[in-house]
Amino acid sequence: MDCLNRRSWNQHAAGQIGHALFALMLVLTLAGCAGAGSGNGPGAAQTGVSSTTDPLPSWRNGAAKQSILKFVADVTHEGAPNYVPPAQRVAVFDNDGTLWSEQPIPFQLVFLLDQVKAAAPDHPEWKSNPAFKALIAHDSAALATHQKDLLQLIAAANSGMTVDAYDQTVRNWLATARDPKLNRPYTALVYQPQLELLAYLRASGFRTYIVSGGTIDFMRPWSQQVYGIPPEQVIGSSQAVKYELRDGHPVLVRLPKLDFVDDGPGKPVGIYRNIGRRPILAFGNSDGDLQMLEYTAGGSGESLELLAHHDDAAREFAYDRQSKLARLDKAWDEAIARGWTVVSMKDDWNAVYPEPKQ
Amino acid sequence: MDCLNRRSWNQHAAGQIGHALFALMLVLTLAGCAGAGSGNGPGAAQTGVSSTTDPLPSWRNGAAKQSILKFVADVTHEGAPNYVPPAQRVAVFDNDGTLWSEQPIPFQLVFLLDQVKAAAPDHPEWKSNPAFKALIAHDSAALATHQKDLLQLIAAANSGMTVDAYDQTVRNWLATARDPKLNRPYTALVYQPQLELLAYLRASGFRTYIVSGGTIDFMRPWSQQVYGIPPEQVIGSSQAVKYELRDGHPVLVRLPKLDFVDDGPGKPVGIYRNIGRRPILAFGNSDGDLQMLEYTAGGSGESLELLAHHDDAAREFAYDRQSKLARLDKAWDEAIARGWTVVSMKDDWNAVYPEPKQ
Repeated sequence: MDCLNRRSWNQHAAGQIGHALFALMLVLTLAGCAGAGSGNGPGAAQTGVSSTTDPLPSWRNGAAKQSILKFVADVTHEGAPNYVPPAQRVAVFDNDGTLWSEQPIPFQLVFLLDQVKAAAPDHPEWKSNPAFKALIAHDSAALATHQKDLLQLIAAANSGMTVDAYDQTVRNWLATARDPKLNRPYTALVYQPQLELLAYLRASGFRTYIVSGGTIDFMRPWSQQVYGIPPEQVIGSSQAVKYELRDGHPVLVRLPKLDFVDDGPGKPVGIYRNIGRRPILAFGNSDGDLQMLEYTAGGSGESLELLAHHDDAAREFAYDRQSKLARLDKAWDEAIARGWTVVSMKDDWNAVYPEPKQ
Repeated sequence: MDCLNRRSWNQHAAGQIGHALFALMLVLTLAGCAGAGSGNGPGAAQTGVSSTTDPLPSWRNGAAKQSILKFVADVTHEGAPNYVPPAQRVAVFDNDGTLWSEQPIPFQLVFLLDQVKAAAPDHPEWKSNPAFKALIAHDSAALATHQKDLLQLIAAANSGMTVDAYDQTVRNWLATARDPKLNRPYTALVYQPQLELLAYLRASGFRTYIVSGGTIDFMRPWSQQVYGIPPEQVIGSSQAVKYELRDGHPVLVRLPKLDFVDDGPGKPVGIYRNIGRRPILAFGNSDGDLQMLEYTAGGSGESLELLAHHDDAAREFAYDRQSKLARLDKAWDEAIARGWTVVSMKDDWNAVYPEPKQ
């Protein structure tokens, strides 16, 4: 799918659209649409040298890797001054751009739009809808001028069903949808070094959480299988749901609005509501993660804050504030000023994606 | 504290008070104020015969205990038709009236009112407030006629501080407050048979959750120590909080409104938002738990639904629909009709509260 016109989408839509789904779209599109590189370069999918002693084989031996190893050693060494009991070892990870790719457009937005297309046969009236026509024609410019119509289509196509039915819809989509440029399932576009880091933290007594601007219903169906993160440890934006009996069967039905936006200052709020503990490790990649990183750094003991830098045009994408993507601006400054760990995807990772399955 | 006039509180306040805290008060008072027995009868605090083989020594050997033992055996026996993998063994418990007493008035309401009294020195203007005067004079009738003023006092006294400061306030209160009739700390008014059941379920691979109309900030400070339930497994109503930097320190500040009411049909919603799995065991005691029980029963596999019956005037309190407390009406009918397990506190429990500590 072509990249939508990000500027007009973000800056003009807010005043026009009262619908709560706008908040989701904003979250999903704020980080997207940078005019950056693409494709899977020659260095991609190297999973690193297998080792029985190195828990992070896809991490090159540099400052970032060392800061992780030192931190984990510090907080897990019983009797040491910075020891943290297992119950308090909470690690939080942003999802889009931190655990998997988010370019050229966040994958959840691709899914939402695919649901509009899938619902079209039940909505013959959409044939004359300008947003629907633009979507079918892949006309980004026209889509950008019919945002309100588009959001209404998305709301209609992604609500009304039970959460169980929606869960199955997400599973079905992931089983068949493929990234058009890399020709891989979206769940194969997770970062191999992060899979290793998640596993290493869990093996060190941490509980690993996703804290994402994406919605919980989109991530939960696959977070266990792909990341090893169970549904109860997936924190995100959430669709309002309503309890009811349908034909005598108790179900939760999706309503066409969001009841929580887990982004920016919403992330510490989501952490409070779902965990009730301040994390000791946070990993993000954008200004939407700034408050989560800041909140983690504000704890009373040792903590580790990490910021992924997308600087690898050959193997993934290169985008930061130099690429007109302001979204990385504040978090970047803060990371430099406070000595947080900036992780260069180009220099710190010797693989980006997992090896394709044979 | 005297019991407030329940009827006028519940039936007339709703139309008058727009403030969100009303929802909390409603939740907290709906189950309260039954004109029932009190006190610690001669049979109280028997902890049952210690046994190395019986995981539930305070449960008498009757139908309720047998249904629990059979259910746990069924779902934990690998290879059996009703086997449930540990990750899906989710058990949810209401708190007030299910895990600890809720009479003569829910303990969180006592706390909220105590906070009003504690805040009074900072609010000299309250001296002329009719609700404050009624509160100090223990004048229930006058309080009932000044509900809106009272809710404003509660909102003022229980917001504005950080969640960390509030957490400490709850801890301080619990350390000193005592139930006036039983002269015990409130956290000693938990049910010994339920402590055993929680421990037994966890030892059988279950994760135990609280799903309460009370607020998470009131329960989390003590749920681990008293119930063995960590803060991330406490689901409840929640106060709205706002992320901010105070003197450069990142904090969450309590706002004077609720952002979620975890009661009735809200309980399955809270379960969806925080767990993302349908429980296989639910334990409640009132109509506020009906949908949670119903939702649990609606799963695809074997499940267990339990309803505590407060029928022990000698050792705790006796209240059900015969006592003008309509709150138990629907859940009771449903339990009988569907064969859920009704737990008689009088007949099924050989102890109610834990033995006082020496």
